[in-house]
Amino acid sequence: MGAEVKASGNVFGNYFQVATYGESHGGGVGCVISGCPPRIPLTEGDMQVELDRRRPGQSIITSTRKETDTCKILSGTHEDNNEIAKMYRPSHADATYDFKYGVRSVQGGGRSSGRETIGRVAAGALAKKILKLKCGVEILAFVFKVHQVVLPEDAVDYETVTLEKIESNIVRCPDPQYADKIIAAVDKVRVRGDSVGGVVTCIARNVPRGLGCPVFGKLEAELSGAMLSIPASNGFEIGSGFAVTDFTGSEHNDEFYMDKAGNVRTRTNRSGGIQGGISNGEIIHFKVSFKPTPSIGMKQNTVSREHQNVEFLARGLHDPCVAPRAVPVVESMAALVLMDQLMAHIAQCEMFPLNIALQEPVGVKYTRTPELAAILP
Amino acid sequence: MGAEVKASGNVFGNYFQVATYGESHGGGVGCVISGCPPRIPLTEGDMQVELDRRRPGQSIITSTRKETDTCKILSGTHEDNNEIAKMYRPSHADATYDFKYGVRSVQGGGRSSGRETIGRVAAGALAKKILKLKCGVEILAFVFKVHQVVLPEDAVDYETVTLEKIESNIVRCPDPQYADKIIAAVDKVRVRGDSVGGVVTCIARNVPRGLGCPVFGKLEAELSGAMLSIPASNGFEIGSGFAVTDFTGSEHNDEFYMDKAGNVRTRTNRSGGIQGGISNGEIIHFKVSFKPTPSIGMKQNTVSREHQNVEFLARGLHDPCVAPRAVPVVESMAALVLMDQLMAHIAQCEMFPLNIALQEPVGVKYTRTPELAAILP
Amino acid sequence: MGAEVKASGNVFGNYFQVATYGESHGGGVGCVISGCPPRIPLTEGDMQVELDRRRPGQSIITSTRKETDTCKILSGTHEDNNEIAKMYRPSHADATYDFKYGVRSVQGGGRSSGRETIGRVAAGALAKKILKLKCGVEILAFVFKVHQVVLPEDAVDYETVTLEKIESNIVRCPDPQYADKIIAAVDKVRVRGDSVGGVVTCIARNVPRGLGCPVFGKLEAELSGAMLSIPASNGFEIGSGFAVTDFTGSEHNDEFYMDKAGNVRTRTNRSGGIQGGISNGEIIHFKVSFKPTPSIGMKQNTVSREHQNVEFLARGLHDPCVAPRAVPVVESMAALVLMDQLMAHIAQCEMFPLNIALQEPVGVKYTRTPELAAILP
Amino acid sequence: MGAEVKASGNVFGNYFQVATYGESHGGGVGCVISGCPPRIPLTEGDMQVELDRRRPGQSIITSTRKETDTCKILSGTHEDNNEIAKMYRPSHADATYDFKYGVRSVQGGGRSSGRETIGRVAAGALAKKILKLKCGVEILAFVFKVHQVVLPEDAVDYETVTLEKIESNIVRCPDPQYADKIIAAVDKVRVRGDSVGGVVTCIARNVPRGLGCPVFGKLEAELSGAMLSIPASNGFEIGSGFAVTDFTGSEHNDEFYMDKAGNVRTRTNRSGGIQGGISNGEIIHFKVSFKPTPSIGMKQNTVSREHQNVEFLARGLHDPCVAPRAVPVVESMAALVLMDQLMAHIAQCEMFPLNIALQEPVGVKYTRTPELAAILP
Repeated sequence: MGAEVKASGNVFGNYFQVATYGESHGGGVGCVISGCPPRIPLTEGDMQVELDRRRPGQSIITSTRKETDTCKILSGTHEDNNEIAKMYRPSHADATYDFKYGVRSVQGGGRSSGRETIGRVAAGALAKKILKLKCGVEILAFVFKVHQVVLPEDAVDYETVTLEKIESNIVRCPDPQYADKIIAAVDKVRVRGDSVGGVVTCIARNVPRGLGCPVFGKLEAELSGAMLSIPASNGFEIGSGFAVTDFTGSEHNDEFYMDKAGNVRTRTNRSGGIQGGISNGEIIHFKVSFKPTPSIGMKQNTVSREHQNVEFLARGLHDPCVAPRAVPVVESMAALVLMDQLMAHIAQCEMFPLNIALQEPVGVKYTRTPELAAILP
Repeated sequence: MGAEVKASGNVFGNYFQVATYGESHGGGVGCVISGCPPRIPLTEGDMQVELDRRRPGQSIITSTRKETDTCKILSGTHEDNNEIAKMYRPSHADATYDFKYGVRSVQGGGRSSGRETIGRVAAGALAKKILKLKCGVEILAFVFKVHQVVLPEDAVDYETVTLEKIESNIVRCPDPQYADKIIAAVDKVRVRGDSVGGVVTCIARNVPRGLGCPVFGKLEAELSGAMLSIPASNGFEIGSGFAVTDFTGSEHNDEFYMDKAGNVRTRTNRSGGIQGGISNGEIIHFKVSFKPTPSIGMKQNTVSREHQNVEFLARGLHDPCVAPRAVPVVESMAALVLMDQLMAHIAQCEMFPLNIALQEPVGVKYTRTPELAAILP
Repeated sequence: MGAEVKASGNVFGNYFQVATYGESHGGGVGCVISGCPPRIPLTEGDMQVELDRRRPGQSIITSTRKETDTCKILSGTHEDNNEIAKMYRPSHADATYDFKYGVRSVQGGGRSSGRETIGRVAAGALAKKILKLKCGVEILAFVFKVHQVVLPEDAVDYETVTLEKIESNIVRCPDPQYADKIIAAVDKVRVRGDSVGGVVTCIARNVPRGLGCPVFGKLEAELSGAMLSIPASNGFEIGSGFAVTDFTGSEHNDEFYMDKAGNVRTRTNRSGGIQGGISNGEIIHFKVSFKPTPSIGMKQNTVSREHQNVEFLARGLHDPCVAPRAVPVVESMAALVLMDQLMAHIAQCEMFPLNIALQEPVGVKYTRTPELAAILP
Repeated sequence: MGAEVKASGNVFGNYFQVATYGESHGGGVGCVISGCPPRIPLTEGDMQVELDRRRPGQSIITSTRKETDTCKILSGTHEDNNEIAKMYRPSHADATYDFKYGVRSVQGGGRSSGRETIGRVAAGALAKKILKLKCGVEILAFVFKVHQVVLPEDAVDYETVTLEKIESNIVRCPDPQYADKIIAAVDKVRVRGDSVGGVVTCIARNVPRGLGCPVFGKLEAELSGAMLSIPASNGFEIGSGFAVTDFTGSEHNDEFYMDKAGNVRTRTNRSGGIQGGISNGEIIHFKVSFKPTPSIGMKQNTVSREHQNVEFLARGLHDPCVAPRAVPVVESMAALVLMDQLMAHIAQCEMFPLNIALQEPVGVKYTRTPELAAILP
């Protein structure tokens, strides 16, 4: 068993984007359409009529293979019919989704639903596996802060923290003592139907040097954009982040030194493993903040779609704190960014590999090719 | 019922691309991964373990909603186990797919299978519907040539040809007399297990003026790239195409004139409705050539994956001529290009609509806005 | 005078990207190449030989226009020859640039130089102008914090702060009293050759509702990625940002209400004008943190390219605090993101404008079209 | 001397695109803006005011380096003032450019000018150099047909034709005898102020196997889109192209065999070196048709921008046949596509190189890595 490539060049269009999937005898074929203007009346019949024109077995001069090719729209169509649809939940996507598309993102948020992250985590699992296989990259995230409970900076050793430690408790905090404090903090608001926010720290070990670009495509820019695309996130900081104002330049700079193995290293890592937009081989570490779940079991004032001031009380069960469940999503998005950047780096910079001396320490091993010899004597 | 937008900004990554789909309560959520390096060992279990970390109902401090989130890989994994996999079918993707990915595109062609076009046709149906709704665009393709049978240029009136006429026979040729000739030509090779190629003509009526770009994004370039991405296609020509060498410039130029309605029109349309990469409001017309189906019921020499010279006889049922079935695929790809370009045009050029005089004739109507007044007195 | 469009579809390629510019009789024609593998020996002669084959006036059967088309490489080639090139400046891009490309980013940082932002500011000026013209958008940034000096949250009224106020002092802080404190703080480190970091706040007024996307393309994700691509930035937060952990959900949610004008508004704006990745019509506000300039007038330990531990003392003149000069760059990148998102929104959602009731409040005015009538009775 | 990479991730935005260039001490810094809405009033002053805010040396607390950063708009602004601007030249971009942007592409065609191809040729020269260095790729184009003069298919040996042969005459036809015929044909129309079209053949030798993708990104699709983006081109065919209808499947299929060196080869190459969208290691060959130059020295009927029927007589000197000068542009665009695809291939498929047996014959040599050993025993 192996994952055959899903061929790249697999998305068509820039505005009205179509990604197709599936194989001749696989588990069905289909497409994902992105960017479609909203409120287009569409039924499966609209598509079926065209599919019927395409399918084989239509006549003696076509293949007589029997394929039904029955169209099924899995998602993307809706009916406005439930009560939630009638009012805008405070700090949810309901109102803005409606403002933009003129359709209520019903049924628990539509594309804005946290469930959308399932696809990210599935893809992230594959990216993690490849990064590990190629460079031994390890990506780990954990809960660093919830409400007023915050880990001391030295509570977690980035060099040695393990997945086991993180998964050893329900809030995914590698420090058992603080895990208990966080659980208590969450429980305190949970019982009264309220929620709290939190901060997740993510580290990536063994990331090869050289990932990222010096201008718009800085590695921290890619990571930041990926993290802020996670539902409920509202902040990102790489390395020392906003605390940077506590330092002067002479205090903050990461001085270089040669380690015993002959590698160029930095004594401190306030840059978070990235300098000038490019990874430097140190551990990459960043933080992401998450809002309190807006769905709470308490009455709130809001307005209805019909522009009436109304009171709203959320139904159903919600996380009193999303941070613990955000941990695997943060890891997945980090893996997707690093995988994307690793491929970009290989395409651009491994065509003529760098000289060994510079790259020896990194995960990727290089061989001295004739082409290289021709360029770098 | 209406198609809620599948939000754009819905594809993540540039090399390792992930498109997610699905909603909270829709028909499942998932992702399509493009660009993944081949031959990565992957099982559903690899993904399930991460999905389990993400899902709710894990503890008292998370939502106690019960969601199983069971991973199912629909396609993209394979096993090399059948006989076809052992030899490279002549002029199929077998060998090149293997050269590139190191995996045999088994099971009828994997991603190279003609069945992949199902996703294109489904998306094309939506694009057609929107283009019709917005501008009254009509896209029609038909079989123009098969083997030695070719329609006279004047056999089909681009202004009046209808879908009904095209669908009135099994080879999708709007001229009944030539349709019979084509059927006979196909049947002649079919009975001896051989196949023939053909040429499909596609026209688009009521395409607004102004679609396309003057440099790399010329409308004919977008259409050409789309058509050559259809399996078995090997040629594209817009307007007079390769026959252009029969003309001198003075014979070939499309002279402008003012029609009775006060529109700028061309007396001839050798440009095929596109000049300088941008649509001019005339009917867009182009041709696409298709190879004979490489799968034939005759013995052929080839080599096995083990590099042995062998004889190969295709199994199964195949189209003796793909052109008739390619017709809806050609229309669909044309619709995807025009839809993409219409959105691009609206984004760039309808922000401050052009003055009415110039645009009156086109499908899109414009209003004179205050912003416009400020710019174009 | 007006800016003729630089046609979109103006960048060719996905990995080896080429953007061309210039016109027949303009100020020269040329190209910008991105993604080129490093360390390729290249001279203008390599290009001239091909240009000479293309140019007119070569023979009687070509145009006899005289065009010299002399090749000039403006940037991108280098020589390693100065002293700085020999050692890696701490917390600069020197080392990582060298790790990635195998070339020292000499001459003040090459593409990593702060001077690269000139192109961003020039483009941002155009984006600002268009946003203002189309929707009355106003983008303003100012220095919020430097070292230990931080403005009280209520010191600046986002509704009324003006460019004049911001530009009234050399540190671009709209509060004169705090401006003096900041100047003092900067001066204190400047005199001893040290530097300090700072935080810049950016606001955008009159941003239309509906900009952004619900999934990967969330507006805050686009803004975050843009801000972290600015040299020396290392943190981004939208709305309440990392301070979000100070609130419970019931305290943090932005309740909706109907204002006197009949608009859906929020009483608070902790979301920073964006909910579910889409702008809600409130003022967009976010913060960006900047590191202390790594170039300081003090001895630092580092290593040379030859892997020797050495001491380094920066030459030249550097900003003791980059925050004030980062202000127009932050505004420019915000303008580029909003302009890009406005075009995306118009392409997707103004094809069939939303009903007036929902969109009335926003900057963009809509008319009820026949198409809309057909969809939304 | 070497070309330092122009970092990728160097283009910002998807609709309003900005590419920046230049370095700290290089030949100036700047940006290229693509996709800008047309008719925006813009002066250098609009940009200068922002640049002045950004530049150093503004005060004691900023760097006191003196940089003027004077804004210069090289192209993209215009004035409608000459006579040509008043009428639409038949089959030029004048009318469509005006329809789309509401500005006359004056001064010889603006962005539609053939001079824009200078940027393509310069970039193509670099791509050619890298392809040659990495894989020994040789890209050669030549004139195959002009008006009624057409080379016999066997007149040029794709294996041995050289640049010298092609450049040995002014029409770039490697067959001296036919070159003379072509020169005569061109001269015949030139003397009476008319023009003729032509067809250019392009071949690429030593292209590695495996370039391209199986779905939308087929190599022939990328090549086709690139060729149709060249001014005046109106047709593309790969391999047998439109002549494919002359063959049956049994006649057209390229049978595989093992050559003496143990390579998988095809006896014929009607596929043009690409099968299933992916290169197969045979010589890639395709044809591109070009219209007669629309600018002719003969009176033509057309309309003015004021919608009057008028007569037009072109001024200036023009190519009676563009094909010979299109040759280096065709080669350049082919080089840009192959370079882009090579990088895509390396990113995706060389992360874990294929086993040697399969790839031995291709230009790129592979080594068996530990990672590979782990996957392919």
